[in-house]
Amino acid sequence: MRLNIEGEVQNLPAVWWDSEVRKVRLIDQTKLPFETKIFTCNTYQEVANAIKTMRIRGAPSIGAAAAYGLALAIDEYWDDDNYIDKIKTAYDHLLMARPTAVDLKNGLKWVMSDWKVNPESAIKLAKSFADNLAEQSKRIGEIGKTLIKEGMNILTHCHTGALAVVDHGTALAPIIQAWEDGIRFHVYVDETRPRIQGRLTSWELSQYDIDHTVICDSSSGYLMNTWKVDFVILGADRVARNGDIANKIGTYNLAVLANHHNIPFYTAFPDSTFDPNTKSGNEIVIEERGLNEVYEIKGYSQKNKRIDSITIYDQKANFINPAFDVTPASFIHGYITPHGILTKEQLLEKVGAIKES
Amino acid sequence: MRLNIEGEVQNLPAVWWDSEVRKVRLIDQTKLPFETKIFTCNTYQEVANAIKTMRIRGAPSIGAAAAYGLALAIDEYWDDDNYIDKIKTAYDHLLMARPTAVDLKNGLKWVMSDWKVNPESAIKLAKSFADNLAEQSKRIGEIGKTLIKEGMNILTHCHTGALAVVDHGTALAPIIQAWEDGIRFHVYVDETRPRIQGRLTSWELSQYDIDHTVICDSSSGYLMNTWKVDFVILGADRVARNGDIANKIGTYNLAVLANHHNIPFYTAFPDSTFDPNTKSGNEIVIEERGLNEVYEIKGYSQKNKRIDSITIYDQKANFINPAFDVTPASFIHGYITPHGILTKEQLLEKVGAIKES
Repeated sequence: MRLNIEGEVQNLPAVWWDSEVRKVRLIDQTKLPFETKIFTCNTYQEVANAIKTMRIRGAPSIGAAAAYGLALAIDEYWDDDNYIDKIKTAYDHLLMARPTAVDLKNGLKWVMSDWKVNPESAIKLAKSFADNLAEQSKRIGEIGKTLIKEGMNILTHCHTGALAVVDHGTALAPIIQAWEDGIRFHVYVDETRPRIQGRLTSWELSQYDIDHTVICDSSSGYLMNTWKVDFVILGADRVARNGDIANKIGTYNLAVLANHHNIPFYTAFPDSTFDPNTKSGNEIVIEERGLNEVYEIKGYSQKNKRIDSITIYDQKANFINPAFDVTPASFIHGYITPHGILTKEQLLEKVGAIKES
Repeated sequence: MRLNIEGEVQNLPAVWWDSEVRKVRLIDQTKLPFETKIFTCNTYQEVANAIKTMRIRGAPSIGAAAAYGLALAIDEYWDDDNYIDKIKTAYDHLLMARPTAVDLKNGLKWVMSDWKVNPESAIKLAKSFADNLAEQSKRIGEIGKTLIKEGMNILTHCHTGALAVVDHGTALAPIIQAWEDGIRFHVYVDETRPRIQGRLTSWELSQYDIDHTVICDSSSGYLMNTWKVDFVILGADRVARNGDIANKIGTYNLAVLANHHNIPFYTAFPDSTFDPNTKSGNEIVIEERGLNEVYEIKGYSQKNKRIDSITIYDQKANFINPAFDVTPASFIHGYITPHGILTKEQLLEKVGAIKES
């Protein structure tokens, strides 16, 4: 992804191996969008901590960070007398950083898939894990960009950029690639309460100078009803066998509204998101996240001149915080995958087959 | 409205004349929901300033505050040699406090409707202006509460309580009165970004111990789709001749979603909100408010131990902030007015006739 770091434009993924210093580096997402900083992890413990404190986040990016973290441990302890024990400890420590993210386990297992792993092969494997994610994202961009036409007004929700998927992104990849091809359009970016991931989306779009406007989630219907939205594109957190998707809370609202206004509604995701073992959206359990996400907000304090938090409600109030909702396949016009823009029937046929092979 | 002020439960309107000290008092809305404080205006200038700084807000409440402010000036300058000049100055000063609110002018004109106004009659007139608003709200409550049944899950948007309408409220009045009658139900309160008026609604419901949960605006569809909403009730900022309504941004989203899920959708408002001169919603110009409402948030800082603001976006981002949207009459099941629960045809017939008389 293109990054402007203290005035210098660089092309960097969300997390990478710095072969010069033999360390793991990542874009510090806790500082964004207020400061663009590279964070260096000198030890695997620092990688685990960066995952825990959400300096890096987004399931695929977490998986890549864990893979690099394990490679870092192998590199560090290769000549240690207790090498095996130390690596076992590192593996478990990294796995525990965020126990619910399956990608994290996948990243670690990928590095350990070589029974005779050594520092160089570990680094290579971690890199191949991250590169595969980036490659899939790039394909999603190439395929999805064909849907984006000159002068379109596009609406997106949550954050689906390079930060979350190592590079390129899912729903943001087609947008960025179309812009890089010279197509000009406007993007409306949903704020996406409670976590306000819209500010990360806005920040990523800014790196490419893509025209965009941040809106409060409640403005989407107003925009659609005043002919200001031609196309809705967003990601997915899980795609069921029948094509129903679980995605960031608010996706269902957009789906119903887009349907009412006859606006095309597309979702973009890598292979790992399709889950043929889940029959339909009814089977997907919606995660309820911490209520502090609703009543506390992080931002930049002009007075303190630093990133700070405030409580925006009376603490005695009750809240709910469902992190996702389910959108039925009937609302979805197409599934943008690394294998093409698919119908729900093709999804099972093409992506399902790849996953089983 | 019932208020718990430093442990003592009192019954107070949003703004009132304190006859003991001959001053205007109001609930300081800039401190809510973090602190419940009564603010005393010793001069009409202090009343104007309280309107300007939004210590009091909500168009009808502003009108009542202005009326009381003018009465305060008349009371103060009654024996002054330049009485007429001073009252003229006070009138203009109060009128300028928030130049767009028509209720403000109505409140001032009401007090000056007596050509031989004196301190006592001015106070009486200001009180009658405020009382009429409170009385209409009370009727809305009595009429609207018949729609609320035991065990219902009710969804509301923005703030439509006593704070905004001198007393009782519009959409909140039926909810509070039904609860006071012993009917038990649950209220989902939309956060209502950008201004987060949901925290005022939550605060008012708390005064009556009414079961409620604050939700992010994007959760409404999820709640409806999981059978958790039976009834939607909200206010209106303007009602057109054909029954289309302009109301707080996000109302249209709820209308489309409620319609999709066959959930009854009602709006409640006093006579002043119905505007027979506006033919339809197409004629209503949507106010674009300051972008700082989107990128700055006020809350309580745990560190500073006081109410503070933070910037939640990179300042370079673009925003839009439409304050209202238009919901067509076809989505509205009924109009709760002081004259009954009306259809759009009855609205013109009943409320229109009163306004013309």
